[in-house]
Amino acid sequence: MKESLSVIKIGGHVIDDRASLLAFLEGFVNVPGKKILVHGGGKRAGEIANQLGIESQMVDGRRITSSEMLDVATMVYGGYFSKNISSLLVARGVNALGLSGADAGLIQSTKRNPNPIDFGFVGDIQKVDANKLHQLLTVGFTPLFCALTADDTGQLLNTNADAVAADIAMAMTQHYDVNLTFAFEKKGVLDHVDLEDSVIPNITEPLFEELKALGKIHSGMLPKLTSAFRALHHGVQSVNITKFVNPTPNSGTILKL
Amino acid sequence: MKESLSVIKIGGHVIDDRASLLAFLEGFVNVPGKKILVHGGGKRAGEIANQLGIESQMVDGRRITSSEMLDVATMVYGGYFSKNISSLLVARGVNALGLSGADAGLIQSTKRNPNPIDFGFVGDIQKVDANKLHQLLTVGFTPLFCALTADDTGQLLNTNADAVAADIAMAMTQHYDVNLTFAFEKKGVLDHVDLEDSVIPNITEPLFEELKALGKIHSGMLPKLTSAFRALHHGVQSVNITKFVNPTPNSGTILKL
Repeated sequence: MKESLSVIKIGGHVIDDRASLLAFLEGFVNVPGKKILVHGGGKRAGEIANQLGIESQMVDGRRITSSEMLDVATMVYGGYFSKNISSLLVARGVNALGLSGADAGLIQSTKRNPNPIDFGFVGDIQKVDANKLHQLLTVGFTPLFCALTADDTGQLLNTNADAVAADIAMAMTQHYDVNLTFAFEKKGVLDHVDLEDSVIPNITEPLFEELKALGKIHSGMLPKLTSAFRALHHGVQSVNITKFVNPTPNSGTILKL
Repeated sequence: MKESLSVIKIGGHVIDDRASLLAFLEGFVNVPGKKILVHGGGKRAGEIANQLGIESQMVDGRRITSSEMLDVATMVYGGYFSKNISSLLVARGVNALGLSGADAGLIQSTKRNPNPIDFGFVGDIQKVDANKLHQLLTVGFTPLFCALTADDTGQLLNTNADAVAADIAMAMTQHYDVNLTFAFEKKGVLDHVDLEDSVIPNITEPLFEELKALGKIHSGMLPKLTSAFRALHHGVQSVNITKFVNPTPNSGTILKL
């Protein structure tokens, strides 16, 4: 048996709200053993972009990352959130390093093919450097990732945070027994979106297909669950989706193949 | 003899200009052995603050770091510059980690006493964690620091970049023979500010006192040289002030006790 590693992804809605963020961090501090935190975007980047007079471009309801928006993402995710969260974790006894995938080539990506839709400076992950991450963990650091990566020319690229967490989890199975947790503002995947307590305790792949067909899983939950099952297929021990205040592997919705 | 370590500080004027930054990075990549980069602020933070409608507050000609300005510094220094520089270095084969002093408690500071002048969220360095930095260097990373630190409550604090470089250099003498280089837009300390080639090759402490008395050293050069001599008094092997394109220990102005 390998040593265990928790990879915990925290959603943008949680980090936008100071009280939620602090509640999450208390929970994160208490997660035993080695761990990696991945944080999503949140509303603040859009607010800063608005204030700077940068217009959001959307195609088919999806946001385009222009060069100006990439700079804002780099400032807000890679600077504001990363350094605020790492300093709060350090004050709570965690050796957090606020990183991006671009640092030390930890997560290498390529710019997404502009056909059929040009999403701009968006990266698709090619490789996570599990050995370098393992070295950081081994000497006692807790890496904290924002969802920025870079290609081999050093071009920064905006990257889906769920995919960052899933790809890190998969790569780290080389060295660890990995538990992947998606922590967000709900208690889990809900059967009825308006009923806080209608958490579906277990989702298997066949049930996932049924729920999709019923239209119960859509928008952001769809790529999240797709990433989750991809992780389970690639050696990740457990994946769950849970409330941010208690990001433990056995809470919320547990996913099974 | 201990292994050698180069601590190189790059000024804000250089990183504001893309061509200068790239020229510096080519030089930095070629510096042999273990190395740490510290980057200053530059004009961009002020530009972003202006665009966001945040007013600069000055007291006695010195800038005050309000809470809003600290957020801008965190975005611009800790995000924009840190992640852009680290990704450019990675693309050039350097295992750069874009960090702040807040990360992993690497540089601990306290908020400056508000008497006689309240500079706001400005930190004075208390301690550099030389052991953790040594661990990062030992496993092959090249730390890249912006001039942000944090106190023990996790409060981020704006910090003088020359002091960050000098304090890192002094702390690392525990593990290394340290060379400290301040790289900026001039060829060294100039005898005549308008004559590019009037570099003073060596400055001893007595000469520093003379130059101060003559009014030849003032503004930003004064705290830089004060930090430099402090470093020499605390075991740093060599300190020099040189042009950014060739940040080697024996170029520009060499400081001696």
